[in-house]
This record gives sequence, C-alpha cells and structure tokens, in this order.
Amino acid sequence: MIDLYTWTTPNGRKVSIMLEECGLEYTAHAINIGKGEQFAPEFLKISPNHRIPAIVDQEGDGGPLAVFESGAILIYLAEKTGKFLAPKGRQRAQALEWLMWQMGGVGPMFGQLNHFINTAPEKIPYATDRYASEAARLVGVMDKRLGEARFLGGDYSVADIITYPWIAPAIDLIAAAKPDMVGEAANTRRWIAEVGARPAVQRGMAVPKLG
Amino acid sequence: MIDLYTWTTPNGRKVSIMLEECGLEYTAHAINIGKGEQFAPEFLKISPNHRIPAIVDQEGDGGPLAVFESGAILIYLAEKTGKFLAPKGRQRAQALEWLMWQMGGVGPMFGQLNHFINTAPEKIPYATDRYASEAARLVGVMDKRLGEARFLGGDYSVADIITYPWIAPAIDLIAAAKPDMVGEAANTRRWIAEVGARPAVQRGMAVPKLG
Repeated sequence: MIDLYTWTTPNGRKVSIMLEECGLEYTAHAINIGKGEQFAPEFLKISPNHRIPAIVDQEGDGGPLAVFESGAILIYLAEKTGKFLAPKGRQRAQALEWLMWQMGGVGPMFGQLNHFINTAPEKIPYATDRYASEAARLVGVMDKRLGEARFLGGDYSVADIITYPWIAPAIDLIAAAKPDMVGEAANTRRWIAEVGARPAVQRGMAVPKLG
Repeated sequence: MIDLYTWTTPNGRKVSIMLEECGLEYTAHAINIGKGEQFAPEFLKISPNHRIPAIVDQEGDGGPLAVFESGAILIYLAEKTGKFLAPKGRQRAQALEWLMWQMGGVGPMFGQLNHFINTAPEKIPYATDRYASEAARLVGVMDKRLGEARFLGGDYSVADIITYPWIAPAIDLIAAAKPDMVGEAANTRRWIAEVGARPAVQRGMAVPKLG
C-alpha cells in the first residue's frame, strides 16, 4: 500500500496519474495548501520542502519509505513496477530528458505565469509577459518534438505523465496570450487529446476527491 | 569519448563536475550563450530546448547518443559508470529526491532572482523580493537537511554535484538579502567547504576554459 499526500494541483496529479497507470493500490490524503496544511510538523517529516506531492511506500526498502518531489516519485514508481520507463538505453535517456525538461522548465515557468496572473497583489506587465513568453517558447519546443515523435520520450512514459497535468489546462491561456509564438500547436493538441483519453489519466486527474 | 556542450554557468558546471568525478574522458565545447550560439541549427539537433548543457556519448546505445537537461545527463552518467547514485533502495530514492529539488526549485528560483537583480531592464521590487524570499526558504530547507545528513542524499551523490554550482556562488548574496531567514546557514557552509574541496569539483568548476 502507498500513501499519497496530494492536492488539486498539476504537481499532485502527476503522481495520482502514475499510480493509476501502474495499477498500484494507494490511499490519497488531501493536504489543503490553501489552509497551509503543508506546514504541519507531521507533514514536514514526509516532505522536508513543505510541498505536495509526497508518498510513503509502506513496503519500502527495509520499512516505510517516504519520497518527495514529483520527478523522484515517478522514477521510484517506474522502477518499482518496471512500467513507463525503459530500464536502459536510448528510450530511457529520452524519457528522462523530457521528464527533466518538465521539472526544470514547464512546471516552474508555468507556475510563475500563474502567480503573476492570479496571485500577485499588483499587476506587473514585465513579469507577466516574461513568463507568458517563456511558456509559449516551451510549448513551441514541445510541439516540434511531438511532430517528430508520438510521445515525448518516444514511447508513452513518465515524461508524458509528468507533463500532461501542466499543459492540458494551460494551453488555451498560453495560446491566447502569445498567439504569434504558439500558433495552432497542432501536435501538442493531438497529444493532449490522446493522453487525456486514457482512463488512468482521467482517474488520476480526479484525485483528490474532496468531501 | 563524450562531447560536452557547455558554458560558464551553474547548469554547465554540474556536468563538468560529474564527468570529472566519474573519471570519464570528454571534450568540452564552449557554447557562448551571450552570443546566442545555443540557437544554431546544429546545436538544436543535440539540445531541442536550445539550452546548455548537453552531451553526445559517442559510445551510446547503438551509436552516438545525445542527452540534454542536466538532471538527465547526471543520471545517465551515474548509470553508465555505476557511480554517485545507488542502483536501488532508500539511498537511490534520497539522491533522486534532492536532485529533483534542485531541478525544480533551486535552479529555476535562483535563476529568476539573478534575472531580476542583474538582467531585467527595470527594477521590480516585488519580483526581486519574491525570488530572494524563495531562495532563502530553499537555503533553509537545505540547511535543515544538512544538519541531519552529511550530504543531501545521505552519501555523496548526484544530488550534491547538481546543487553545488548553484549554491556556492549564491549563498552570500542570499544571506545578505534575507538575513533573518538564512541566518548563519552553518550546515550549508560546512557542506560547501567539503564539496568545494574535492579536486574533481574544482576541476569541473573551471570548465569551459576560455580564450
């Protein structure tokens, strides 16, 4: 059994999708970041960075094993199950490079765009434009890749699972903000439709269910 | 033989340190990002995100293998050599979670702080303070971890190699910007001294040699 600590955010959904895709039994625990529940001392023991998602694998290495950071959790689960990440060679390298591209690029930059649009107490056109441009540039990189390969890592992999929850809800906003940079993004939209049609992805995107 | 495409930046130095630590033969190629050399078509074939670092392993899986994104390169080299990343279990999970913490947190947030201090054409106090606070928070997380463990992943690993080039040059600036949040950061400074004393780290930090 795996305990998943998560919330209704893209980073949380990466892990619930992966757990669903792998067919692993898990219990989702909602950590309401709007109420600051990620700062509770008992959560800090699991996630020293005070962020969701985190897991505890009750059948871990020598006892319960806590893992934080979505990228590390996905690699952990892929290696535990032998699914969605080739054990070696070119396919593995490709899946990991696109997974890292999401971790270091899409997640942080889309996150900053969201902050300056929705959360910052003042409107700062320079910052909003900076992150809209960077988000649009990243969509362009992705669209080119998906014109050459069906999935980001070649085969369907952790790279797609980690990127989908960020891109799917944001593509229309980014395309509207930077139409000249994003254009139709036809390859990306084809990929969003294909990944989004997977039953495990749909189940994972509905986690956590709130009372 | 490995070709390394890099520049005089923290992300570039991650990989030169790793190559030096692993004792791998490599040739460093300077990609001058100040002159836009990362946008050259021949570089795009190696690094579709137009960023350094990237490598080409001439003895890759079935022929030359290009890998981009520093986190993916470090895992690739660790698995190629069997060094600085345990093959399974708790030590592996810990090294990967702190590696991802750098990829998704330290790198992007320190990068934004640098942008708003040094590059942005206007002074935007809200943005500068936002990223100084986030950088200081991250130093606090790291300092707590390094009060409990000698290295980020427990043993010296890819997690330390990937984090050192970002933290070492930035700690004094962050401590001066947010003294109440950072304090002495004694554990972090002990770790910077210990990691920075390694000959391979010193050699890697001097790559690429210019002129």
